Amino acid sequence: MSESFEWSRAVEFYETDLAGIVHFSNFYRWMEAAEHAFLRSRGIVLHQGPLGWPRVSAGADFKKPVKFGELVRVVVSVGELRTRSVRYDFEIRVGGSDEVHATGSLTAVCVDLKTMKAVEIPGEIRAKLSGDHG
Amino acid sequence: MSESFEWSRAVEFYETDLAGIVHFSNFYRWMEAAEHAFLRSRGIVLHQGPLGWPRVSAGADFKKPVKFGELVRVVVSVGELRTRSVRYDFEIRVGGSDEVHATGSLTAVCVDLKTMKAVEIPGEIRAKLSGDHG
Amino acid sequence: MSESFEWSRAVEFYETDLAGIVHFSNFYRWMEAAEHAFLRSRGIVLHQGPLGWPRVSAGADFKKPVKFGELVRVVVSVGELRTRSVRYDFEIRVGGSDEVHATGSLTAVCVDLKTMKAVEIPGEIRAKLSGDHG
Amino acid sequence: MSESFEWSRAVEFYETDLAGIVHFSNFYRWMEAAEHAFLRSRGIVLHQGPLGWPRVSAGADFKKPVKFGELVRVVVSVGELRTRSVRYDFEIRVGGSDEVHATGSLTAVCVDLKTMKAVEIPGEIRAKLSGDHG
Repeated sequence: MSESFEWSRAVEFYETDLAGIVHFSNFYRWMEAAEHAFLRSRGIVLHQGPLGWPRVSAGADFKKPVKFGELVRVVVSVGELRTRSVRYDFEIRVGGSDEVHATGSLTAVCVDLKTMKAVEIPGEIRAKLSGDHG
Repeated sequence: MSESFEWSRAVEFYETDLAGIVHFSNFYRWMEAAEHAFLRSRGIVLHQGPLGWPRVSAGADFKKPVKFGELVRVVVSVGELRTRSVRYDFEIRVGGSDEVHATGSLTAVCVDLKTMKAVEIPGEIRAKLSGDHG
Repeated sequence: MSESFEWSRAVEFYETDLAGIVHFSNFYRWMEAAEHAFLRSRGIVLHQGPLGWPRVSAGADFKKPVKFGELVRVVVSVGELRTRSVRYDFEIRVGGSDEVHATGSLTAVCVDLKTMKAVEIPGEIRAKLSGDHG
Repeated sequence: MSESFEWSRAVEFYETDLAGIVHFSNFYRWMEAAEHAFLRSRGIVLHQGPLGWPRVSAGADFKKPVKFGELVRVVVSVGELRTRSVRYDFEIRVGGSDEVHATGSLTAVCVDLKTMKAVEIPGEIRAKLSGDHG
């Protein structure tokens, strides 16, 4: 449906736990950071204007641990674009390897921030999300 | 399969985000805190001895926001107990209301910490997880 | 200047790091949680109405580590109450012991949320902070 | 005493709170991330081998808020290098501006991880910390 986008940064010490690996809750934070970087790359501005994007579901499968000091790379793509919601899919890799350490998805619904009711995703944002260059 | 268990605490300011509600990543932390309190209530000691419980998957559906200063209550139950893994199911409520703000699940696999390979859940722990008092 | 107040809860797994102890950044979150519980105990409502309390400084000395599964107890007291700001002092203990694992302080300034300028702490809040019952 | 080093990254949504700005606890995480990037830049490897660097104190003064989507830049320098400890000093700026949003410091002590006792900082690490190229 759309070209993928990659976000990366060094894994930080404060993201590890006493098992010696990254705590699983941080994978969701990385997925969100990748989503936001992807949206910025498409010219979609967040947290300004009348619309918000609360999450309605998020899940992940953890295949291999990620460790302190590694470079985490999160590939994000638009998995499904519906009238009022969008699902992003993620693959998490480490360093220069193609091995997938985790996969995940995140579904956000478009709401009017005044009423917090779901609304149709505006056409301009829809086009940017789907990567239509017109 | 087993009686449920409830964990609760006040929602903290540092768990909110600029949308004015709790950031969704914290729901996974609460689910883990509830899991750990449940395990302690069953006499299962964590992070001592030869076994570990890395997560293989975690997911959640978010129905209503949770806000600063509310009392968050997480009900945990054993959803599925397999040979080498256990899935916990969660319902997240707020204050004295029965309304469900989120549901989630977390699957952990039993590993030998020396080899990090999956092993059978020992009988004693299995009995405690399943609530057998036999 | 005022009676002290104690906040406590179990140390959570997600608060540890790969050194096997609680990451130092969480001590500041605990100090804030203790501050907020203290304010609620004095009848001071946060994040409602026209006033906010941004932090202007925070510091801590770490004497002994705090570990997963321990009960962390944070004693908070008003260290200094000035015209426009208040400094809270903290002592962090663990379990039933009197040994101090860390000390800290946090200074918050009273601001008008519309202008974000420092304003005088209202008399009613000042009386509650100082523990005057007269 | 030593040349400074700059670490930067985008401020993430999960680092904000309901006051609409970055929660102050994250400034300590950024300071640590900058410290670690600085040490890597000097060829000092962390969390391998017999030495650890627990924190003995950390403090910060907050002058201006930092916001979602801004680029946070943390300048780190070695403020004081003692026999068994090192104090790092930090200045936090935003975007392309020279304005200082926060200052902070972090003191870490060199310990033998087997005994957790303070030991002298080895000469090789001391030279790298002080920027001696001799």
